Amino acid sequence: MPPLVTLTTDFGLKDAYVAAMKGAMLHVEPSLRIVDVTHQVDPQDVMGAAFVLLQVIPFYPEGTVHLVVVDPDVGSARLPIAGRFEGHLFVGPDNGLLSLLLRGSEPDQVVVLDQRSFWRTEQPARTFNARDLFGPVAAHLASGRALDEVGTPTDTFRRLHWAHPLADDEGIQGFVVHIDRFGNCVTNISREVIEKDPRSRHAKCYVGSTIIEGVHDTYTDVPQGEPLALLGSSNHLEVGVNGGNAATLLTIHKGSPVSLVYGDG
Amino acid sequence: MPPLVTLTTDFGLKDAYVAAMKGAMLHVEPSLRIVDVTHQVDPQDVMGAAFVLLQVIPFYPEGTVHLVVVDPDVGSARLPIAGRFEGHLFVGPDNGLLSLLLRGSEPDQVVVLDQRSFWRTEQPARTFNARDLFGPVAAHLASGRALDEVGTPTDTFRRLHWAHPLADDEGIQGFVVHIDRFGNCVTNISREVIEKDPRSRHAKCYVGSTIIEGVHDTYTDVPQGEPLALLGSSNHLEVGVNGGNAATLLTIHKGSPVSLVYGDG
Amino acid sequence: MPPLVTLTTDFGLKDAYVAAMKGAMLHVEPSLRIVDVTHQVDPQDVMGAAFVLLQVIPFYPEGTVHLVVVDPDVGSARLPIAGRFEGHLFVGPDNGLLSLLLRGSEPDQVVVLDQRSFWRTEQPARTFNARDLFGPVAAHLASGRALDEVGTPTDTFRRLHWAHPLADDEGIQGFVVHIDRFGNCVTNISREVIEKDPRSRHAKCYVGSTIIEGVHDTYTDVPQGEPLALLGSSNHLEVGVNGGNAATLLTIHKGSPVSLVYGDG
Repeated sequence: MPPLVTLTTDFGLKDAYVAAMKGAMLHVEPSLRIVDVTHQVDPQDVMGAAFVLLQVIPFYPEGTVHLVVVDPDVGSARLPIAGRFEGHLFVGPDNGLLSLLLRGSEPDQVVVLDQRSFWRTEQPARTFNARDLFGPVAAHLASGRALDEVGTPTDTFRRLHWAHPLADDEGIQGFVVHIDRFGNCVTNISREVIEKDPRSRHAKCYVGSTIIEGVHDTYTDVPQGEPLALLGSSNHLEVGVNGGNAATLLTIHKGSPVSLVYGDG
Repeated sequence: MPPLVTLTTDFGLKDAYVAAMKGAMLHVEPSLRIVDVTHQVDPQDVMGAAFVLLQVIPFYPEGTVHLVVVDPDVGSARLPIAGRFEGHLFVGPDNGLLSLLLRGSEPDQVVVLDQRSFWRTEQPARTFNARDLFGPVAAHLASGRALDEVGTPTDTFRRLHWAHPLADDEGIQGFVVHIDRFGNCVTNISREVIEKDPRSRHAKCYVGSTIIEGVHDTYTDVPQGEPLALLGSSNHLEVGVNGGNAATLLTIHKGSPVSLVYGDG
Repeated sequence: MPPLVTLTTDFGLKDAYVAAMKGAMLHVEPSLRIVDVTHQVDPQDVMGAAFVLLQVIPFYPEGTVHLVVVDPDVGSARLPIAGRFEGHLFVGPDNGLLSLLLRGSEPDQVVVLDQRSFWRTEQPARTFNARDLFGPVAAHLASGRALDEVGTPTDTFRRLHWAHPLADDEGIQGFVVHIDRFGNCVTNISREVIEKDPRSRHAKCYVGSTIIEGVHDTYTDVPQGEPLALLGSSNHLEVGVNGGNAATLLTIHKGSPVSLVYGDG
């Protein structure tokens, strides 16, 4: 089985950045298998990148290297890091993303990438570490190098926290964290939170310009053109419209509040 | 030669869907070769997906698996199917797409995908069969499993029909089925229909805001900036502008009528 | 190491063009490794394609084949060519792009692609040479065929020239040649030109709606939200905004003039 690296960046697809980085990676390990997760993370949206990648990691084999470069502080003193967690490897700038992938648990190991012999050049371009440092190191890790070969163990790395929904006896209050290509609006309300209180399946959902009854399992549970709340494939509460674009039709944006209210039932 | 799968979906490139599906496929068959046809089919546009894929299939080797997921009815009772035709394999929801690829001929075999041991999980997410069912089955087929291992033969599958152009002694009446990135407007009028009547090469073409003389072979047959009708690489009548965007310049939309009128000549 | 081909086109990602071309290439050489540089070159923008590819080539191994199809004159008398320079191979229409990659130096060899046995068909579609001619020839070259097997040596090919910045004792005058996904505005003023006169590091930079002081090394050299001029990863002067989109915020377009003025300092 060839060494596998996934790529998640905000580089877009029209510039040279992704291909230059891939060239630097293939130079290290020509047999590398590279899968693009997305290069269309909103510029400098670390949480958006983490949200997408969390839905991808479980479907990749142990040992996969996930290279994630959303790097608003490129060229500053922020450190380049790599880590291992749940059998997967992470490589990227120390921007808090690793902690978002961990969701509260601790990594098996984190290193600061300070071994320049694994970089493309000892003097990386200050605005393009992906090509000169992260890509080559990810390729070395995928081809079997150990974390403590490419870096020095550290206990400190930047921590960010997912905003958790508020749940009380009246209901659950969260917000929209991602709007997908179809206009489905994914919230920060997880399946676990929903399933903790059986009333939530029959709650009223207040979101954007509408009020929806109940939590469903798939779009076709309601008639064509109707809005619904459902537990989608990401295992989070999602607001959709059967056959339509919920974000547009219901005036929902990233960050819009979503409330489940239990009522008297 | 590694097993080959092409992917055609309406998933877009900014979400986790494509990468999660690829992970589930590589889990089944790590040596799989995956080619993205497009993930930018208009949401839920089954005919649009079929139109693109028909221009791709002839250039792939026999035995290639074409995974096509445009699935407005995901989670409903619509069946998952696979089929073999002209030496190629199709996997996807039973949404009529297979029949559009067949263009009137019959498939060699069609099966309902009911063998859960070839799925990623026996309880697929009701909104993401591509990751949990279609992707893994496509990977199994590409790696050599037979259709009747992964499913049960069936005679019934959903049939859709291409709208044929109307041809009579006065001319040919069709419409625009696809507008490409350059603004070229591809119609449902095939080369065969054009070549049936030699007058069509010199016909007047009424389309959008203009009338064009004759049917050409390439854009540079007319001066820079001029509109033309031509028989393009898809073997269908196309309306273009040499060096320009015909859709924008001539106010042509998907669905716009296109008439070839023979005149007195 | 598998034979490696990079692809740079203006085909976009929603049509069948890229996948049909890849099918024709894999038919020739199933083990081919294909890396997409970009398919989102502005339609028919030969200089834009060359600008992106120049930032990619140095990171690929010698022997890589770079297939570049931006082909406003497809179907006309323009010739199909291939060439070797600095250990890399180029394949594409004779539209001047090869000369832009050479930046004034001469190629090792250039051939006209006239050996039809290496094409997909002896009668290529007049509007899609990428699928029927360039793709297959690139695959043959990647799998070891020599240039003079697939074509006939020539001394003449189309020459285009990069517009050089004007530098005099007062300062340097250039223009914006590329705006990247982040809104960074890359100019035609190279690191060499900047470094020729030490005053340029402290010059005033006039661009769009603003005047900026000095030339920096990375975005975080100025406070969040502030504009700056810097020597970016492409080794050209770039105008950016730390954490923001310079093109939008400063009203800069492709072609906008950029002046460095030395002042009295």
